[in-house]
Amino acid sequence: MTDQEYMRLALDLAKAAQGQTSPNPTVGAVVVKDGVIVGLGAHLKAGEGHAEVHALKMAGDKAEGATAYVTLEPCSHFGKTPPCSNLLIEKKVKRVVVASLDNNPLVSGKGVQRLKDAGIEVEVGVLEKEARELNTVFFHYMAEHKPYVTIKTAMSLDGKIATVTGESKWITGEQARLDVHRYRHEHDAILVGVNTVLADNPSLTTRLPNGGKHPIRIILDTNLRTPLDSLVVTDGMAPTWIIVGSHVPQEKWEQYTSDMVTVIRASKSRIEINEVLAILGEKGILSLFVEGGQQVNASFLEAKCFQQFIVYISPKLIGGQAAPTIFGGSGFSSLADAASLSIQSIETIGDDIKIVAIPK
Amino acid sequence: MTDQEYMRLALDLAKAAQGQTSPNPTVGAVVVKDGVIVGLGAHLKAGEGHAEVHALKMAGDKAEGATAYVTLEPCSHFGKTPPCSNLLIEKKVKRVVVASLDNNPLVSGKGVQRLKDAGIEVEVGVLEKEARELNTVFFHYMAEHKPYVTIKTAMSLDGKIATVTGESKWITGEQARLDVHRYRHEHDAILVGVNTVLADNPSLTTRLPNGGKHPIRIILDTNLRTPLDSLVVTDGMAPTWIIVGSHVPQEKWEQYTSDMVTVIRASKSRIEINEVLAILGEKGILSLFVEGGQQVNASFLEAKCFQQFIVYISPKLIGGQAAPTIFGGSGFSSLADAASLSIQSIETIGDDIKIVAIPK
Repeated sequence: MTDQEYMRLALDLAKAAQGQTSPNPTVGAVVVKDGVIVGLGAHLKAGEGHAEVHALKMAGDKAEGATAYVTLEPCSHFGKTPPCSNLLIEKKVKRVVVASLDNNPLVSGKGVQRLKDAGIEVEVGVLEKEARELNTVFFHYMAEHKPYVTIKTAMSLDGKIATVTGESKWITGEQARLDVHRYRHEHDAILVGVNTVLADNPSLTTRLPNGGKHPIRIILDTNLRTPLDSLVVTDGMAPTWIIVGSHVPQEKWEQYTSDMVTVIRASKSRIEINEVLAILGEKGILSLFVEGGQQVNASFLEAKCFQQFIVYISPKLIGGQAAPTIFGGSGFSSLADAASLSIQSIETIGDDIKIVAIPK
Repeated sequence: MTDQEYMRLALDLAKAAQGQTSPNPTVGAVVVKDGVIVGLGAHLKAGEGHAEVHALKMAGDKAEGATAYVTLEPCSHFGKTPPCSNLLIEKKVKRVVVASLDNNPLVSGKGVQRLKDAGIEVEVGVLEKEARELNTVFFHYMAEHKPYVTIKTAMSLDGKIATVTGESKWITGEQARLDVHRYRHEHDAILVGVNTVLADNPSLTTRLPNGGKHPIRIILDTNLRTPLDSLVVTDGMAPTWIIVGSHVPQEKWEQYTSDMVTVIRASKSRIEINEVLAILGEKGILSLFVEGGQQVNASFLEAKCFQQFIVYISPKLIGGQAAPTIFGGSGFSSLADAASLSIQSIETIGDDIKIVAIPK
C-alpha cells in the first residue's frame, strides 16, 4: 500500500469522529511496520486521548522503527494531554507522514520540528487538501476566533419558505429533515431569532434514530421576549443562551433562573451579528448552525457573516407575490453586490434537492 | 447486434431532428439485412419524406427480406406523403420492429394491423419508453389538442429573479442563456406578457452559434399596449401573435399593419390561459415556451396549465423582502394545494444549476 492509501485510512478514521471532538480538530492515525498495519487510532473526544496515542498504544513494541500516518501535525505542547510528538519520539517511530500542518499558532510547525530534531524522518502534505477539508471548522476558528457559520434553509422550487398564509410544515420531506438533525449533532451551537421561538416553540435539539449531541441553543432576542414557559427555557435538554440588546434591564433577565439558561447582553441596543460571533467565539463555540427565519437570515447575509449555505429545495411550486422567501431585509440592490457562491455539492435526498455552497 | 441496439440507433437518428419536424413527430428508422445495416433514415421536416421512406430508399433492393426498426408506428393513411406501411409491404420487408404505437387516432394500431395483414412479422414495444419521451410534445398535443407548455425561469439560490431595484441582467451565466436559445429553437412558439415587451423590448428570437429556427412570438396583451415600434412588431424575424381582451376595439388593432403581426381577440375581456392554449392548439402550435414575468407565470401556475417547469439557479444570494420571485399573483394558500412536481433532471451548466421538473 502507498502512503496515500494509509493516509486515506487515517482520514476515514478521523471522519468517523466528526462532530464529537469540538473544540478539538478531528484526527486519525495509522501505524505501519514492515507493510503491516500495527496500530489504528482516532481522536474521539476533547480531553481524551489523541489519535496518535491510541494508535501507538495498539502498536505496542511494534511502534519501534514503524511509520506513523497522522492527518494533522502532532502537537508539541502540554494541553489536557501530554504532547504527541514526545510519544512518537519515545516509542522510537522511524518515520512520520503528516497530511496537514496545524494552524493553531501554539503548534504550527513546532511538532514537525521536534520530530525532526529527534532524528525522525518527516513528510508533510500527503492528502493535505482532504485533511484540511475535514477540519475546515477548526481551521476557521483558529484563524478568526469566531465560529464557522452555516446558514441552513429550505424552500420550494419557486423560492418560497411558506405559503402566503404562513404554512411551512412541511415544505421538505422526512429524509431532508433527518439530514438537518445530523447537522445539529455536528454543531456546537444552533441559532434562531425570538420570532421563531414565539411562532413554533421549538426544542432545537438533535433527534436522530440513535440519539446524538444537542447543540447549545442561541436565541437572538433584542427585547428579551423569549417566553419563560418556552421549551428552550424549560426543557433542560441543552444550554440556552439568550442574546439581548444592551437596554434590557437586569430585573427582566433575572427572571430566567434556570441553570441551563444564560442571558447575554450585547454592547448596543441593536444586536450586531459580528458582535454575536465574537461573543460566541470567546465562549469556545467553533461551529454555528443558523436555522433562522427571514430576519435572522438577512442579518447574516447582509453582514456577509457566513461560511456555508445549505438549501433544501422541495419540488413544489407555491407561488404568491406575498409568500415569504429565505431572506427578508433590504437585500442587495445591485447584482454586483449580491453574495456570489461556489456550489460544493448537489444531491437528492428523498424527493428533495440539497445544495451546499460556500461564499467565493 | 440486438433489437434494442438497432432501435437505440433509430432513436438517435430521430433525436437529431428534434425541434425541426413540428407538427409531425420525430421518427428514426434503421433497415437491417443479414446482420448488416442497409438503410438509415429520419423524418427531417413536415411535408417531406418519412423516416421509413429514407431508410428504404437507401436499402434499395436489399429491403426484401430485411428487418425494419422504426421508432413510431408506420402511418397507414395518406397525408402529405403516401402511407409508409404500404411502402414496407411493397418493398417486401420481412419483419418490422416498432418502439411505440402512434396515439394519433388516425393511425394508432392501424399501421401495425396493415403490416400483419400483409404477412409481415411485427413486434411492438422495444424501447417504448424512450420513444414516447422523444415525442412527449406530439403525444400531448394529439391527446389534448393544446400545446405542451414549458415554463422557463431563472433565479438566484435564494429564489429571487431580480434585485429590489429590478436589476435582473444577468442572474445566470452565458452558458445557461445559450441553453435557453436551444429551447427556443425546439419550440413552435414562445410566450411573454406585454410587461416584458414594455420593459425589455426583446426580440424573442433564437440566437445560436449556427442559427436556428425562430419560434412564433405570442404576446399576452389584455389592453393592446404592445408598442408599434417594438421589435416583435417591426423586426419581421418571425410571426408575432398578440392576444388581446374582447373589449379592444378594431380600430386599435388595425394599426398593426405588418403581415407578420396578427392580433387575436379572446372571448372575454380578461384573457384566460385555457382559452389561449385552445386557440394556439387550433392554430397548430404543438409546443409553447413560456418566458413570462411574475404575472404571466402566475397565470399558468394557478390554472395548472403547464407540462414542464425549468429553472436555472444561479449561485448568488440577492436577498430583500421586496425582491421579486418567479411567481406573482396570490399563489396557493395551503401546502396541500401547491403544485407537486417530479424532478426529471438536475445538472450544472457553467456556474449555474438547471432543474427540469414535471407536474406529478
